[in-house]
Amino acid sequence: MKQIHGGVTAAPGFKAAGVHAGLKDSHQKDFAIILSDSQATAAGVFTQNRVCAAPVTLCRDHIRNQVANAIVINSKNANACTGHQGLEDAYSTAKLAGETLGVNSNSIFVCSTGVIGQQLPMDIIENGIHLAVQMLDGDGGHDAAQAIMTTDIVPKEVAVETKIDGHSIIIGGMAKGSGMIAPNMATMLSFLTTDVNISPEILQTTLQTATRKSFNRVTVDSDTSTNDTVLILANGVAENPQITAHHQEFQNALDFVCIELAKMIARDGEGATKLLEIVINNARNENDGTLAARAVAESPLVKTAVFANDANWGRIMMAIGKSGAEFDQSNIEVWIGDCQIVKNGVDAGFDEQKATEQLNKDTANITIDLHSGHTGVTFWTCDYSYDYIKINAEYRT
Amino acid sequence: MKQIHGGVTAAPGFKAAGVHAGLKDSHQKDFAIILSDSQATAAGVFTQNRVCAAPVTLCRDHIRNQVANAIVINSKNANACTGHQGLEDAYSTAKLAGETLGVNSNSIFVCSTGVIGQQLPMDIIENGIHLAVQMLDGDGGHDAAQAIMTTDIVPKEVAVETKIDGHSIIIGGMAKGSGMIAPNMATMLSFLTTDVNISPEILQTTLQTATRKSFNRVTVDSDTSTNDTVLILANGVAENPQITAHHQEFQNALDFVCIELAKMIARDGEGATKLLEIVINNARNENDGTLAARAVAESPLVKTAVFANDANWGRIMMAIGKSGAEFDQSNIEVWIGDCQIVKNGVDAGFDEQKATEQLNKDTANITIDLHSGHTGVTFWTCDYSYDYIKINAEYRT
Repeated sequence: MKQIHGGVTAAPGFKAAGVHAGLKDSHQKDFAIILSDSQATAAGVFTQNRVCAAPVTLCRDHIRNQVANAIVINSKNANACTGHQGLEDAYSTAKLAGETLGVNSNSIFVCSTGVIGQQLPMDIIENGIHLAVQMLDGDGGHDAAQAIMTTDIVPKEVAVETKIDGHSIIIGGMAKGSGMIAPNMATMLSFLTTDVNISPEILQTTLQTATRKSFNRVTVDSDTSTNDTVLILANGVAENPQITAHHQEFQNALDFVCIELAKMIARDGEGATKLLEIVINNARNENDGTLAARAVAESPLVKTAVFANDANWGRIMMAIGKSGAEFDQSNIEVWIGDCQIVKNGVDAGFDEQKATEQLNKDTANITIDLHSGHTGVTFWTCDYSYDYIKINAEYRT
Repeated sequence: MKQIHGGVTAAPGFKAAGVHAGLKDSHQKDFAIILSDSQATAAGVFTQNRVCAAPVTLCRDHIRNQVANAIVINSKNANACTGHQGLEDAYSTAKLAGETLGVNSNSIFVCSTGVIGQQLPMDIIENGIHLAVQMLDGDGGHDAAQAIMTTDIVPKEVAVETKIDGHSIIIGGMAKGSGMIAPNMATMLSFLTTDVNISPEILQTTLQTATRKSFNRVTVDSDTSTNDTVLILANGVAENPQITAHHQEFQNALDFVCIELAKMIARDGEGATKLLEIVINNARNENDGTLAARAVAESPLVKTAVFANDANWGRIMMAIGKSGAEFDQSNIEVWIGDCQIVKNGVDAGFDEQKATEQLNKDTANITIDLHSGHTGVTFWTCDYSYDYIKINAEYRT
């Protein structure tokens, strides 16, 4: 497996476009389409928030057919908490895109991200469809990645190439963050394309596994969005013998793409100054490891200390203690980077200056050994800075 | 029942002192003792954090005797994650205080709050005991309330007078916040004294009920401390016929004191500019109501919007949606103060200016009707401001 350049148009047989339809002020891109030249096998995972946006309802409906021709995405407006009108608008968007592209609207997926509670301006959406269809291109992935950004600072794309039963295949993807991010099934929007030949059932289970280890292990602010969606389209252009059972190499490649995208989301979290990786070793089981990792990753006190490059290990102990994971306090070991700060549950007698240097990095790492079992779990988040407050106090108004 | 002046020395038969022992820089008070002139009946609730401080272990041990003569409290150092030495120091503190006061050390409770992971400087603790014992006074409650403060801006005291079976009784209390505050059994430190005559079993169940409705319904930052402790001492001086069964009037009075102290903690949360009250109406049951209220109260996105006086109701919908509480999205109603902002799950068509005015108050209120049952739950928190980040990025270093 090797990482290659590109995103959702890295795999052959996919086109994309990102255009300015008129939702965002200025001339920033705000509308994207991803098109599969032939009908693709599709799988998806969605938010578990009980309050769910209209486009998520549409995607849950359409995914039952297990096929997709295109995904239509707008930023700036989430089409969430918009009642019957919102649902009608999502289906109208699919219908219009289907007509314009000459495909069945049931194989069109619609995703929205942005402000909750405002009705979609359908004239702008219509304009977006016409503009984007004209711009569809085999190199359009980067434009699409820009168009789905909200408070994101950087577009997020990853692609890999690997061998499946002697056939070279590509998986590419893009994602957006960067607030209202917490693990609960899917988190935020991510779109993946691949030329692999695979059955819909195995595509779905492989995506669920990858999501569990990637998007569900990233948190910016512990808040789960109403619009979380991860979709994958597989067009079979690679002509490998169809994958009809769990395939570890394909799983590894999809895991890699999803984890890299998840890390990009955490690194670009609202106000973030760094990516923070939380590694739990020797948990009793995956559930305990996830509880402990998530508690540290979501603790405002840990996140503000990391912002200040302060090896405030008492807050790390507090967080794992409240998590519900089982362990014996007197066995705990904690490292910041390669600097051990807690041994047998108490101060390891570390060099504060060295620990501060380990935190003052582009990617900081906290490793915690629970000594309760043999399971490891890794989680990604970012620090909490003044800018997190600034962005979220000023956004919307 | 009427509110009266004072705190832990409002009830007859209690003395207190707050002194500067030398733990805090400058001459701020950092050490307190509360003394019951006669041996009092005692009850307590403690943190459920698996990582628990040495003094909590001592209190859990001593509370089995159901009696107390005194409580010794230091701020600035939590004596948490301090291993065997920490436990030895907590018991030495009780022993020394017992000797100095001439009472059995098993009836001395020891509480600490402050930085995690540093050993107690026992020479300073010893100094504190000697100084405080000399200063014990029937009017010393306010000094004690000052001595237990850490990042608190104001001391927190409440007292009430009520009638129990024809006898006038008093309950007084004090508490400290103001970070690492989240509901899980007890939250933070609170000490209550009363002259009521009551059996230890009923004192314990009454305290648990009051705690569930007060300290367990307040959150500043969703982080549960390692040192949370609520203790109540009842000396029987009021000479009412002993309470030996649930007594609604006493429950009401204790609820009032605990809720007022809990609200003071939320209002004085780190960086807070206002108290935020979350009212859930018509939840399916108390658990659902608590889940929904807590999700709103702990959402960084809601708290930053409230800081900005922004009626960002989409974030409120998001928070109840992720909470796990059961409801039908299309039935939800939300008010900010008396301004309805959500009706049938969508925008109620409200006046933004009016909603902003309702948020821009000393106490802001968000009321949510789930229309799923008949249970109401109220929760208290504060907003997230720049100062929350500042305080927590700079504290400890």
